[in-house]
Amino acid sequence: MTLGNLMSKEHYEALSTYELHNDVPLSPLSFLRRTADVYPDRVAVIYGERRYTWRALTQRVRRLAGALEASGVGRGDTVSVIAANTPELLEAHYGVPLLGAVLNAINIRLEAETIAYILSHSDCRVLLVDSEFLPLVEQALEHVENRPVMVEIEDSGATSGIPASGRYPVYENWLNSADEKQDRDLPESEYDAITLNYTSGTSGRPKGVVYHHRGAYLMALGTVAAWQLPRHPRYLYTVPMFHCNGWCHVWAMTIMAGTFICHRKITADSVFAALREHRITHFGAAPIVLAMLAHEAEGEDLGLEHTVQALTAGAPPPSRVLERVQALGLNVTHVYGLTESFGHVVWCDWQAQWDELDPAGQAEIKARQGVRFPVMESVEVLDVNSGRPVPADGETLGEVVLRGNTLMKGYYKDPEATRAAFSGGGFRSGDLAVVHPDGYMEIRDRLKDIIISGGENISSVEVESVLFKHPAVAAAAVVAMPHEKWGEVPCAFVELVSGREATAEDILAFCRERLAGFKCPKKLVFQDLPKTATGKIQKFELRDWVASQTPVSGED
Amino acid sequence: MTLGNLMSKEHYEALSTYELHNDVPLSPLSFLRRTADVYPDRVAVIYGERRYTWRALTQRVRRLAGALEASGVGRGDTVSVIAANTPELLEAHYGVPLLGAVLNAINIRLEAETIAYILSHSDCRVLLVDSEFLPLVEQALEHVENRPVMVEIEDSGATSGIPASGRYPVYENWLNSADEKQDRDLPESEYDAITLNYTSGTSGRPKGVVYHHRGAYLMALGTVAAWQLPRHPRYLYTVPMFHCNGWCHVWAMTIMAGTFICHRKITADSVFAALREHRITHFGAAPIVLAMLAHEAEGEDLGLEHTVQALTAGAPPPSRVLERVQALGLNVTHVYGLTESFGHVVWCDWQAQWDELDPAGQAEIKARQGVRFPVMESVEVLDVNSGRPVPADGETLGEVVLRGNTLMKGYYKDPEATRAAFSGGGFRSGDLAVVHPDGYMEIRDRLKDIIISGGENISSVEVESVLFKHPAVAAAAVVAMPHEKWGEVPCAFVELVSGREATAEDILAFCRERLAGFKCPKKLVFQDLPKTATGKIQKFELRDWVASQTPVSGED
Repeated sequence: MTLGNLMSKEHYEALSTYELHNDVPLSPLSFLRRTADVYPDRVAVIYGERRYTWRALTQRVRRLAGALEASGVGRGDTVSVIAANTPELLEAHYGVPLLGAVLNAINIRLEAETIAYILSHSDCRVLLVDSEFLPLVEQALEHVENRPVMVEIEDSGATSGIPASGRYPVYENWLNSADEKQDRDLPESEYDAITLNYTSGTSGRPKGVVYHHRGAYLMALGTVAAWQLPRHPRYLYTVPMFHCNGWCHVWAMTIMAGTFICHRKITADSVFAALREHRITHFGAAPIVLAMLAHEAEGEDLGLEHTVQALTAGAPPPSRVLERVQALGLNVTHVYGLTESFGHVVWCDWQAQWDELDPAGQAEIKARQGVRFPVMESVEVLDVNSGRPVPADGETLGEVVLRGNTLMKGYYKDPEATRAAFSGGGFRSGDLAVVHPDGYMEIRDRLKDIIISGGENISSVEVESVLFKHPAVAAAAVVAMPHEKWGEVPCAFVELVSGREATAEDILAFCRERLAGFKCPKKLVFQDLPKTATGKIQKFELRDWVASQTPVSGED
Repeated sequence: MTLGNLMSKEHYEALSTYELHNDVPLSPLSFLRRTADVYPDRVAVIYGERRYTWRALTQRVRRLAGALEASGVGRGDTVSVIAANTPELLEAHYGVPLLGAVLNAINIRLEAETIAYILSHSDCRVLLVDSEFLPLVEQALEHVENRPVMVEIEDSGATSGIPASGRYPVYENWLNSADEKQDRDLPESEYDAITLNYTSGTSGRPKGVVYHHRGAYLMALGTVAAWQLPRHPRYLYTVPMFHCNGWCHVWAMTIMAGTFICHRKITADSVFAALREHRITHFGAAPIVLAMLAHEAEGEDLGLEHTVQALTAGAPPPSRVLERVQALGLNVTHVYGLTESFGHVVWCDWQAQWDELDPAGQAEIKARQGVRFPVMESVEVLDVNSGRPVPADGETLGEVVLRGNTLMKGYYKDPEATRAAFSGGGFRSGDLAVVHPDGYMEIRDRLKDIIISGGENISSVEVESVLFKHPAVAAAAVVAMPHEKWGEVPCAFVELVSGREATAEDILAFCRERLAGFKCPKKLVFQDLPKTATGKIQKFELRDWVASQTPVSGED
């Protein structure tokens, strides 16, 4: 036993090199450091044949920070990434913030023009691009005045099969030639920006949503509680990391020293193989991915020995899909959130008494978005006029308004939009919901998609759902059209199923049989519906077209 | 579907009654509100025949706040409680902070004089006392100048059998006659004090450790992650709530909508009965409680159908005890912390490869305190002179220094002691530990119990452990004694086993056979050892006695 000279045991000055003590900025960087310290030899990342440990991940992250620093990146600078869900994008979730810089993960499905807008608007300093998306990015760069430093991610590990262009430094070499950044890694303030996520809005230019370290930290801890995460989850990264930073799961799984299984492209086969081979315990998926799994697995038994926990957000999962994937061994939880709320802040927390419901009854429950996340302060459904909570009657619509620490700092360089978003003292989601008697909420529509006709409210979703039932209708969108007497009336835009025929009058008659008269479209236009790169219908374009028309003035 | 008039859908002013939006003070009060909203009908508290739901708990908590307010308690005032682990003390953990006031749960094992000191020093405004402890408290109150408002907790639910004195309002009536406090319940700042916990120090007056809402919130979330808490844990409250607020488990279990099973007195039979009857999933216990369980259960099979998770802190659990309680179906995790750190901030996180060790090997691992808690920023073992981390060799001693958000704000009304405690830029625990090659730390001694003799360090614990091996020794304490040549030498104080005899020379000879000469006591005194109300040996009294003696000047 050695202890050095303890004569100075009453003197504490020797320890005064530490700046921090009982008030440390909340940051997910702390989770990485802890997990790398405690579980250095556990596998952190698997991607095809590549796999590396938490120690190795941390070294790579510190090299990435070193390489970025050598490229001139400093505190508050933006580093953009355009990549699939490969390890490099995951590494950037730590390597960029380690430097005090801000990660901007860009949606790979956007068109060049929007990418150019984001690169300019975000003041991007360094851009990491996967070879697969390089042609798109080079097209975008033609419209970017201040060109970022470019680094190309060559997919050495797996499936793209696309060689590096040779025109830019290759990520792996660039990283390996850098020194590990060894400094203390916490931000100066927990309110410092950590990421910048552009909304793929359905109207106008995308807005840059700024996340802070504090929110990311709390989101991750809240996810552990809400999802009851065990130690060492095996997490399949199907949710794109450019969506709310992959629902912030990169940070949550780190707390529990999990393993990330990365994928370039999601197919039913690749998901099934991962579930079996990597014994996946948790993943998140858009409803369309669940539907794909349900469809492809028709009649198959995956032979899973454990229940896989799956989160889904977006449209409520249809009961047919739910029943099928549950039969495969997946337990699906429906959640709700927005880019502005760091992702899922409303969860359909399961109640023990629902175990007794039949599958259809359970599916009905699971279609609800649910209750607030453990670290969300309040999720209320408020009457848009009075600002008061709507009654919990499962019928009265109100706007979902959020308060809590996992809400964005604001929209980058857009104080006016920020002020408007928080104008009610909470974040106005723009989503309309009802509250069921048990307090669980269910989203029904977008606020701006409500049509007010003679003082009555018409849900465009309700009208669209009737149009969808017509056998000749492939897609439909309903927007408000100015009307001299009624204020607004519904106007429908319809795409027909290829090879089918129907007249506007056929379809309107179909509606009149199923809807109150005031809810029926007063005009119907056949045309291809304008969509965003991510497949959302751009109603604003339809509204613009409507606005350019002469107002309807008829009586009906 | 009704929605009111949506004509004003572009106007957000109607919602402006909300003050808070994307930056809300972190407070465990938010967990209570959420769980009561989501799981109102689940049982929150069980005590004997009493049981009530989260809805009822919340109503009682709001009434408690109302009653306290009516008694003149406001923001920042101290409310003290002297009670066993009964529901009233649990309620106070929410009812007092709801008012912005500060809860001071006082150790029921303290003597009247110390209780008087705490009531005076804490500026106690209202004192809730269980009838069992009323005689003690009335004795204490004779020494308190500003007498608090008194409320008596009559144990209606269970086991004390002691009727209320009739001299004070009875808690249950006092509570029920109050209005529920309905205001917004968050503190003005997350750094506001939530509780005040007096250390049962082994020297001098107890110090008042101030916790803030932020630390309590993070401690609770960290516990969910570290203990992998599932939804609806069934938690047996064996850890006294006057110790670090019951290890902050009152707040952690609330996040997961658990059930608290309260107990007035812990016996092996009552614990075994609770484990079976209430299907307890989690509890915390001092090593002495585990030892009691191991002893009482000798050879018995509890017939538990599930593994019970048990935390223990204090002395490392002996392997015999560990093996026995594991055989009963308990999985024990060893943790370490102090009042100043909100309790357990070092956990012996289990590593998968240890599953393969034999029971003795596992017990050896479990004797370690381990690694830092998920929300603790750093736990370092630092050389006391250089302030540098000691090598991870399992041998070199250093002081455990903590940094992070779950550290006290400071000692109440004692800035000097606060400054000293944080003087190294981290909290100096005063505990000496080694770090094993895998990074897991193991506490070896108290810093102030180290004796420095001729530049060599002597661990008093090491010398005591040799004394304990002598068959006639019942208890022993070793402290430093001034020595003209060596600076300090060990002085031993010994209690003999009743009915046994041994001379000082017998025992010193026994030591010399087992210890290097410089570590052997140079003086041995037979006497009853002075102990605190909680059973800790008060070495400061022994040191005072030694200081009053003439320094030893001999050569050996």
